[in-house]
Amino acid sequence: MRASARIAVINPNTTTAMTDKIARSAREAVCASTEIIAVTNATGPASIESHYDHAMAVPGMLAAITECERNGTDGYVIACFGDPGLDAAREIASGPVVGIAEAGMHVATMLGRSFSIVTTLARTIGQAEELVIRYGFSGRCRSIYACEVPVLELDAVESDARKLVVDHCRRAVEFDEADSVLLGCAGMADFCFDVSEQVGVPVIDGVSAAAALVESLVHLGLRTSARSEYALPLPKDYR
Amino acid sequence: MRASARIAVINPNTTTAMTDKIARSAREAVCASTEIIAVTNATGPASIESHYDHAMAVPGMLAAITECERNGTDGYVIACFGDPGLDAAREIASGPVVGIAEAGMHVATMLGRSFSIVTTLARTIGQAEELVIRYGFSGRCRSIYACEVPVLELDAVESDARKLVVDHCRRAVEFDEADSVLLGCAGMADFCFDVSEQVGVPVIDGVSAAAALVESLVHLGLRTSARSEYALPLPKDYR
Amino acid sequence: MRASARIAVINPNTTTAMTDKIARSAREAVCASTEIIAVTNATGPASIESHYDHAMAVPGMLAAITECERNGTDGYVIACFGDPGLDAAREIASGPVVGIAEAGMHVATMLGRSFSIVTTLARTIGQAEELVIRYGFSGRCRSIYACEVPVLELDAVESDARKLVVDHCRRAVEFDEADSVLLGCAGMADFCFDVSEQVGVPVIDGVSAAAALVESLVHLGLRTSARSEYALPLPKDYR
Amino acid sequence: MRASARIAVINPNTTTAMTDKIARSAREAVCASTEIIAVTNATGPASIESHYDHAMAVPGMLAAITECERNGTDGYVIACFGDPGLDAAREIASGPVVGIAEAGMHVATMLGRSFSIVTTLARTIGQAEELVIRYGFSGRCRSIYACEVPVLELDAVESDARKLVVDHCRRAVEFDEADSVLLGCAGMADFCFDVSEQVGVPVIDGVSAAAALVESLVHLGLRTSARSEYALPLPKDYR
Amino acid sequence: MRASARIAVINPNTTTAMTDKIARSAREAVCASTEIIAVTNATGPASIESHYDHAMAVPGMLAAITECERNGTDGYVIACFGDPGLDAAREIASGPVVGIAEAGMHVATMLGRSFSIVTTLARTIGQAEELVIRYGFSGRCRSIYACEVPVLELDAVESDARKLVVDHCRRAVEFDEADSVLLGCAGMADFCFDVSEQVGVPVIDGVSAAAALVESLVHLGLRTSARSEYALPLPKDYR
Amino acid sequence: MRASARIAVINPNTTTAMTDKIARSAREAVCASTEIIAVTNATGPASIESHYDHAMAVPGMLAAITECERNGTDGYVIACFGDPGLDAAREIASGPVVGIAEAGMHVATMLGRSFSIVTTLARTIGQAEELVIRYGFSGRCRSIYACEVPVLELDAVESDARKLVVDHCRRAVEFDEADSVLLGCAGMADFCFDVSEQVGVPVIDGVSAAAALVESLVHLGLRTSARSEYALPLPKDYR
Repeated sequence: MRASARIAVINPNTTTAMTDKIARSAREAVCASTEIIAVTNATGPASIESHYDHAMAVPGMLAAITECERNGTDGYVIACFGDPGLDAAREIASGPVVGIAEAGMHVATMLGRSFSIVTTLARTIGQAEELVIRYGFSGRCRSIYACEVPVLELDAVESDARKLVVDHCRRAVEFDEADSVLLGCAGMADFCFDVSEQVGVPVIDGVSAAAALVESLVHLGLRTSARSEYALPLPKDYR
Repeated sequence: MRASARIAVINPNTTTAMTDKIARSAREAVCASTEIIAVTNATGPASIESHYDHAMAVPGMLAAITECERNGTDGYVIACFGDPGLDAAREIASGPVVGIAEAGMHVATMLGRSFSIVTTLARTIGQAEELVIRYGFSGRCRSIYACEVPVLELDAVESDARKLVVDHCRRAVEFDEADSVLLGCAGMADFCFDVSEQVGVPVIDGVSAAAALVESLVHLGLRTSARSEYALPLPKDYR
Repeated sequence: MRASARIAVINPNTTTAMTDKIARSAREAVCASTEIIAVTNATGPASIESHYDHAMAVPGMLAAITECERNGTDGYVIACFGDPGLDAAREIASGPVVGIAEAGMHVATMLGRSFSIVTTLARTIGQAEELVIRYGFSGRCRSIYACEVPVLELDAVESDARKLVVDHCRRAVEFDEADSVLLGCAGMADFCFDVSEQVGVPVIDGVSAAAALVESLVHLGLRTSARSEYALPLPKDYR
Repeated sequence: MRASARIAVINPNTTTAMTDKIARSAREAVCASTEIIAVTNATGPASIESHYDHAMAVPGMLAAITECERNGTDGYVIACFGDPGLDAAREIASGPVVGIAEAGMHVATMLGRSFSIVTTLARTIGQAEELVIRYGFSGRCRSIYACEVPVLELDAVESDARKLVVDHCRRAVEFDEADSVLLGCAGMADFCFDVSEQVGVPVIDGVSAAAALVESLVHLGLRTSARSEYALPLPKDYR
Repeated sequence: MRASARIAVINPNTTTAMTDKIARSAREAVCASTEIIAVTNATGPASIESHYDHAMAVPGMLAAITECERNGTDGYVIACFGDPGLDAAREIASGPVVGIAEAGMHVATMLGRSFSIVTTLARTIGQAEELVIRYGFSGRCRSIYACEVPVLELDAVESDARKLVVDHCRRAVEFDEADSVLLGCAGMADFCFDVSEQVGVPVIDGVSAAAALVESLVHLGLRTSARSEYALPLPKDYR
Repeated sequence: MRASARIAVINPNTTTAMTDKIARSAREAVCASTEIIAVTNATGPASIESHYDHAMAVPGMLAAITECERNGTDGYVIACFGDPGLDAAREIASGPVVGIAEAGMHVATMLGRSFSIVTTLARTIGQAEELVIRYGFSGRCRSIYACEVPVLELDAVESDARKLVVDHCRRAVEFDEADSVLLGCAGMADFCFDVSEQVGVPVIDGVSAAAALVESLVHLGLRTSARSEYALPLPKDYR
C-alpha cells in the first residue's frame, strides 16, 4: 500500500479563479489520501497567450516551487498548456514535475493511435505544435484547432466557448480521424466531461491527467534524474 | 475521491512463478483500494524471447482478457516487454490496456531527457527498438543493452543477472549519458529497487509503471477510443 | 542462368477462394520455371480486418510455413496486406519471406516519388499507416483511403468494389498527387490491371509484387540474416 | 508465363573493364530469357568518386539511355552506387529505371532489421548517407565504412581491397550489429560471394540486386509514373 | 571593418535576360563595396523545369565556376531554385557556395515558424520537396504551390504570373498558415516586393537571400570545409 | 546600395566583460556602416548554465529589447547559445531577431554536410541538442562535446579552456567526421580564429554569425512575420 502524497498544482498565471477550477479538476483525479495544494503565481500575466506571457510567467512560477519545496511537496503539476518552465522546474524540485500538455499527450497515445488538440487562440498553435514534437508525438497528432476564445473568456456567460470546443472536437474526429481529443488549456478543465459526452471519443483534460501521472510517479518512488542536465543549478550571482 | 478499481495484470507467458513476481510488483504500485488480478497465459511459450514466441503467446493472452471481461475488469496490463497483442487487446477490452514497455518509456521521458533500456537476450533488441520508434521515443532512447541472460534464468541462484544488469545500467549512464534506465523484462521487476540504489539514476520497472498508469486511466474515466480502428472486431467465422 | 525456385504463397486467412485468386496473381508474376505453392491457413479467421483477426491468424500461418519447410520451399509470400507474422516467419523459414504490403511499397517507391494506398475497411488504415512507417516510406505515402467494402465482399456480384477502388485511386492521384497507387488487400489482386487502365498511373498489386521480389531474392541467393534477431527461435516449452 | 525482357545496364563511368564486370554480375541475377545489354558511358570520368565526377557523368549516361530507347529497351540499371541521374533517367526512359544503391538498400531491408554499407573512398560516405535518407532507410542503416581503396584499384593485383572489405564488413556485423552488408560500389560486384562466405551474414551486391528488381518490374508490367514530375521533359532550346 | 568581396551569381540556364534580372536582385541585397559578377551558363537548357534540364545544366555551370576561380571570386550564388550542382560546386570553389532554394529556406525559418513555397510548374514540386527535406525544414514547410506558368513566360506581357503568384501566396497564408512565402524560381525575383505588399507576410526571393548570405560568409571568413567530402576532386581521366 | 543599420546585440547575462567581448566579435562581422549596440541584461544571472538560469534571464532580456525598440533598432542578436527568449523577442521586436545557436547552425550547414558543437558544461548539452532538433539540423549534427569549463572561467588566466576547446574540436573532426565545429558559448567568441587555425576545418562563432545574418535580414528588408503566432502580444494585466 502506498503512503499519502502532497502534490502542488501550480497555476502559472495570476488569475485565482482559474486556480480554483484547476484545483477541483486535480482533486478529482487523485486518491483520497493525496493532498492537492493549488498555488497561484504571484507575479506575471493574468493569462498566458503568447511567448511573451509564457516567458514572463516563469520566474514567479519557479518562486512558487521554491516556496513549496520548503513545505515538503512530493510532486508538481504545471497547469498551463504551454508547459512553461518545465525544464527549470525539474532542476529545482526534489520530486517529479509534469506539465499538463505533456501529461495529456502521453495519456492520449495510450487510448488510440491518434489525437487532436483543441485550444484557445490560434497564435498559441505554434507552441502546441512545438510541444507535440518535443514529446515525440508528431506522428500521432492529427490536428490542432483554435476556438479563438481568449483564456479568460472561456467561462464568460456570453461566451459560446463550450459549443466551439465541441464543434472543433467533432471536426477533429470526423475529418482528421482523431481517436481522442486533448483540451489545450487548463481553463477548459471543467468542460471535459460534457464535451466528451457530446463527441463520442475520449476527451482529455491535461490538468487531471497530470495530477494522476504525478501521483503515479510519486507512488512509484520516481523523481527527475539528477544526473547532469537536471541537477540543482549551480549557485551564482543573480542581479 | 475515486472508486476502487480492478486491474488485470496478464503474464503473456505460461510461467506462474513469473506471474507471482509481476503481481507483487503491480500491487506495490497501486492504491490500497485497487484490486490486482494476476493472470497467467494458459497457452503459449514458457518465456517470450523471439518474434515466434511473441506471436504464439498472443491468442492465449487475448483469451485471458476475454475471460476477464466477463468478470468486470476495469483495465489491463500486458506484462511482457514486447507489449505483445497490445492493439488486439485494445479492441476487445472495455477498459484501458497498457503494455509494460509502453508504460516504462512514457514514465522515463517524464524523468529526464533520455533513457536507456537493459534487457535479457540480444535477439530481442530489435523488438525493443521497434517499440521505441512506435511510441515516439527514438529521440530519447540512448541505447539498448542485453545481458544475455534468458528470461527464466534471471532468478537462478547461480545467475549473475543482477550484477550484469547493474553493469549495463552503469554503462548506459556513463557512456551513453542516459538520465534513467528502463528494465527490459517483466522478470526483472524485483531487481528494480536494488539496481536503482547502485546506479544512482532512476531505474524503471515497466510492470509497476504500467499498473500505476492503468490505475490513473481508470481513475480518469478514460478508455481506448472505440472510434474506428479499436472498435470491437467484426463478428466472423473462426476456424 | 538461374535454377528453378519453389515459392509458397501463404494466405493467412481461411478462405480458399481467396487463396485461388492470390495464386493466380503470383503465378503471373514469376518465371515459367518458378513453382508457386498456394497455401490456405488451416486455423484462424475467414478474413483479416482487425488487430484481433491479425493476431489470431498468425499461429496457423506459422504452422503452414513449418509444414512448407519440410518440403523444400525456397521462399515465402505472406499474402495479407497487414503483413501478419512477418518477423516470426523470418525466424523459422530457411529462405526469404516478403509481405505483400512491404513488397508493394518497395515497388511503388521505385516508380515515382509518391504513392497512395486504397484499402478495404477504414479500421485497417492505422495498421497500413504503421507499416508505411516501419518500412521507411512515411515521406512517400500521400494518403490511405478505405472503400469500406469488407474483404469477403470484394467479389460479390452486387458489390461496387471495383468502382469504389477506381474512385479512390483517382482521388489519390488528383488531390494527393500520388505517382502510383497500391491496392491494400490481397483480395484486390484481380482488380489491378483494370484499375490501372482507368486511373492512368501505375496501380500495384502487392501479391504479384511480393512473388516477383521473393523470386528475385531466391535467384540472388539471399535469405534472411540469421545473425541474432532472426535466428531460429530457442527451443522451449510450449503449452 | 512472362515474356523475355531486354534490360540495359549502364555503367556511368567510361571504364570498359568495369562495364564487363557489371555485365557478368547482372547476367547471373536474371532469367535465361532476359537479355542484358551492358553500356559504357561515352563521356565523363573514368570513375566516380566525387560530386563533381557524379555531375559530369550524368549527361553521357542520359545520352546512352536515349540511344537505348531507340532499340526497344524494357528497363534500366544505373550501375554506380551514387545512383547518378536517376530522376532524369526516369523522365526519359519508357521502362523502369533502378539505381544500384537503391536496389541494394531495398533488398537489404527485406533480409533483416538493419544493414551497413562498405564503400570505397571516405569522401563518398556523405553521398551514400544522403541516399540512405532519400530512400527512407535512415532507421535501418547502422554504419557506412570506407576502405579507402579508389574504384579503379579494387582489382589491382597489389590491392588488398578484398581483405579490407571483409574487415569492414566484420566490424559492421560485430560492432554495429548489422544484419547484412551492402557493397557500396559497382566495382565490388565480383567480391560479393567471397565476402559473404567469410562474414556470415548476407552480403549484397547492388548490381545484381538492381538487375533482378528491374526484371521484376518489367515482368510486373510496371514503369515509372508519368503523372507529372517524371513525365517526358518539355521540349526546349538546348545550347 | 570588412574588405570588399567579389561574388559570382551563376545563372544555370542559358537565358541572358534572366541573368540580368538575377543580377539586379543580387546587387540590391549586398553592400556597396561588394561586387556582383553575373554569369550565364554557356551550355545547357534555356530554362530548368525537369530533372533532365537540371542534369544537363550542371556541367556548364561548373565550367563557369572554374572560370570564375581563375579571376579571384570570393563566393558563389547558384541562381536556380533546384540548387543544381551545389555539392559539386562546393568541391571546386575556393569560397563559399549557396543555392537560392537553400538561402531562401534558411532565411524563412528565421522569420517565423513556417513557410510555404510558390513555384512555376507542378512537375518541379517534387524537387522542391526534396530540397526542403535535405536542408532540414520538412517540419517548417507548410505547402508548395505551382502557378503552372513556365519559367520563360513569367515576364510575358500577356502572362498573369504575378496575379497567380499573389493568389497562391494568399492561399498559403490563409489555408496553410504559413508565416512567410518563398518564391520558388529565380525568375520571380523581381516580383518579390510587389507580392509582399499584397499578401501581408514576408515574401522571400532566394536570389537576394543567397547573395546576402554568401556575402555574410565571405565577411565571416568562412568557406566550405575541405575535410573530406568537399575536398577538391581527385584528378582523373575525363573523356 | 543599402542603408546603414543599427543592430542591438543583447547579452542575456549580467556580466559586462562578456558583453564587451561579444560586441567586438559582432562588430568585426558587419559592414562599416552598420552600428552595433551592445546591451547587458540588467537583471538575472551572471552566466547561463542551467534551465533555471535561462528562465531567469529572459524577462530582463525582453526589457532590454523593449528599451531598444524606443531607440529605433533595426534588428537583434540574442548572444547566449541557448537562444533564450527568442520566440518572445520576435513578438515584441519590430525588426528581425536571431539567436547565436540558430545563426551558427544555419551557417554550419552551408559549409558542409555535418557539424559538431563544443560547449562549456555537460549539463547544457541537452539544451543544445534540443535546439539542434528545433532548427531542423538533427541529421547534420554529429556530436556535442562539453569542456566542463564554466562560462565565467573561459578567460581565466589559469584556465586551459582554449586547449580543451581545440582538443574537443579535433575529436569531433577525427572521430565524428564533422565538416565544421560550432562554438557553443558566446564567451568563446574570441577563441574562434585561433581554434580554427589549429583544427583545420571551419570553426564558427555564433555571435559573429548572428550579427552577419541579422544585418543580411535588415538589408533584405525582412522581419519576423506578424501573421499570428509572432504578432505583438495582447495587452493584459501583469502583476
